[in-house]
Amino acid sequence: MQTEKTVEWVKLSNFKGVSRMIDQTLIPYEYKKVDIKTVDEMYNAIKIMIVRGAPAIGIAGAHGVVLAAIESMGKPNFKEEIIKKADYINSSRPTAVNLSWAIKKQLDIVKNSQESEEKIVELLIENAIKLEDEDIEINKKIGEYGSAIIPKGATILTHCNAGALATVGHGTALGVVRSAFEKDPTIKVFADETRPRQQGARLTTYELTRDGINTTLITDGMGAYFMKKNMIDVVVVGADRIALNGDSANKIGTYMVAIAAKYHNIPFYIAAPKSTIDASIKTGDEIVIELRDKKEVTVINDKPICTDKVNVINPGFDVTPASLITGIITEYGIFKPEELYKIFE
Amino acid sequence: MQTEKTVEWVKLSNFKGVSRMIDQTLIPYEYKKVDIKTVDEMYNAIKIMIVRGAPAIGIAGAHGVVLAAIESMGKPNFKEEIIKKADYINSSRPTAVNLSWAIKKQLDIVKNSQESEEKIVELLIENAIKLEDEDIEINKKIGEYGSAIIPKGATILTHCNAGALATVGHGTALGVVRSAFEKDPTIKVFADETRPRQQGARLTTYELTRDGINTTLITDGMGAYFMKKNMIDVVVVGADRIALNGDSANKIGTYMVAIAAKYHNIPFYIAAPKSTIDASIKTGDEIVIELRDKKEVTVINDKPICTDKVNVINPGFDVTPASLITGIITEYGIFKPEELYKIFE
Repeated sequence: MQTEKTVEWVKLSNFKGVSRMIDQTLIPYEYKKVDIKTVDEMYNAIKIMIVRGAPAIGIAGAHGVVLAAIESMGKPNFKEEIIKKADYINSSRPTAVNLSWAIKKQLDIVKNSQESEEKIVELLIENAIKLEDEDIEINKKIGEYGSAIIPKGATILTHCNAGALATVGHGTALGVVRSAFEKDPTIKVFADETRPRQQGARLTTYELTRDGINTTLITDGMGAYFMKKNMIDVVVVGADRIALNGDSANKIGTYMVAIAAKYHNIPFYIAAPKSTIDASIKTGDEIVIELRDKKEVTVINDKPICTDKVNVINPGFDVTPASLITGIITEYGIFKPEELYKIFE
Repeated sequence: MQTEKTVEWVKLSNFKGVSRMIDQTLIPYEYKKVDIKTVDEMYNAIKIMIVRGAPAIGIAGAHGVVLAAIESMGKPNFKEEIIKKADYINSSRPTAVNLSWAIKKQLDIVKNSQESEEKIVELLIENAIKLEDEDIEINKKIGEYGSAIIPKGATILTHCNAGALATVGHGTALGVVRSAFEKDPTIKVFADETRPRQQGARLTTYELTRDGINTTLITDGMGAYFMKKNMIDVVVVGADRIALNGDSANKIGTYMVAIAAKYHNIPFYIAAPKSTIDASIKTGDEIVIELRDKKEVTVINDKPICTDKVNVINPGFDVTPASLITGIITEYGIFKPEELYKIFE
């Protein structure tokens, strides 16, 4: 399996560099990388989802702080400037905790360092690349632990895209799929389309079929139909923020899948790195759900699908309660929701 | 409320006439009626869903038998010809029982009549128009009974389109909405998009907003999110075939909504005429689910949404078990699923 990086820092000269990322808005029509050169471009890239997926936008945030530092060099309030710009990047999307987690990691360096501006930029670049490499390693561990819960020949249902594209490489939920596939090439995946943005149809089917994994696309309303027909053995999805009790925010629609899985006694797993767990919140009730542009719902392929007289509410995420979650697959092993706190011990 | 007919027989001369129907594939972009003049055209109109909705395709089927009779006049085996053509029309879509129900009603006239060919055609036209008018009357009764279960100021979630467009007029599930709205204009509707064919987005929001009813479009994965937020008071959907035990086939995705409603203790109602109940089958396991073209899933607005390497399974319907259904709203009143058999007593 390739581990080409979805998003990576590319050094151009000592204090010049770009965040190079696959433009995920173009897939499956075009596979193209874009170079993000400024803080403003990074804010926009995260906002309009050129880069998306909790771990991937974490790395993008880390890169954003590097760009913020480069832009702030020579200014009177170097550190304050960086913090201001970092806060701006952090405001691009509220739900995924990895963004603020990675930005905080970078700002800790800024705040604690007594070094020169040049040295701080260097340290930030070093740390960003370290986070990239760690992300791939973490995902491979998640994949390895997770593959143990995939029965031989199983069909795995997933929602949205928690794949290589959502991370630096390998993927979280799809990392579990990839690692299971390495051991057993007879596994299959059912991918929810995942309206409104169709990450399942556009991204998950793209990256899995590229790897030769048998993948079936279904619409978001079909999952229960196939569960009832005993055609789904296990559900594995990613997460954008996990509360200490195991309540997990993930792409809108995940909660309905989890309820349907429970109803059919099908195991439902979250796959996510420790960095997705927000130890500062006790339950999912505290997770802020991003409300997005109504056009994501009303327009597909540049054409409206409905009358313009209709109202729209477009929550980007929902929260699956711990009671519906069989286990949370992390780089430290698989935790029952009620034992998740142990990951911090 | 207007009761303009979605589908109606238009007499041109004694033995000439057409089935005039709103072309539902064009809504919301264009509101246009088409004239169906032959049996082949009718087969196609039902198959590609120019006319859709269980009660509406029932009437289309009745018109189809009229067309079959007109085409068979003067042929050696007049009655056999009609039956052959009627069987052909009946094969256009397998799940909705109303199609075979209405065709059978017409064929009973053909089989039992000793009249001339001309007279038989006349009787078939008369009966088709009677079925049209009865459909509107039935839907108004369904609406009247159903409106009693809509709390004041309620928000009703519906899936697909069981509206005026799915019937001759008024609608079944949306007939309940319309009748409730006449008494309480503060009610609101949340309409599921209903992938793959998007009847909720394209048709339901169109016809409800035209009537001035406050309508919010959501994607199929969002229902449970709004249920959890206490923003849905009741679910009302239509049906395509109901088994004697109350198990109800309806548009794919309905089953997931029903499971989510049960999980949140939200009442879930089916609204359908007696003609949708198939007394010949005991449970939903016996209902044939139509598998449709994969392009309905993979292409939206003439553009693919995914790689062509993906598999697709596209069931048009799913079966909601009686255990998830609070009541079945018919023109004879509201029945608990376990008491549905009483409608035949």
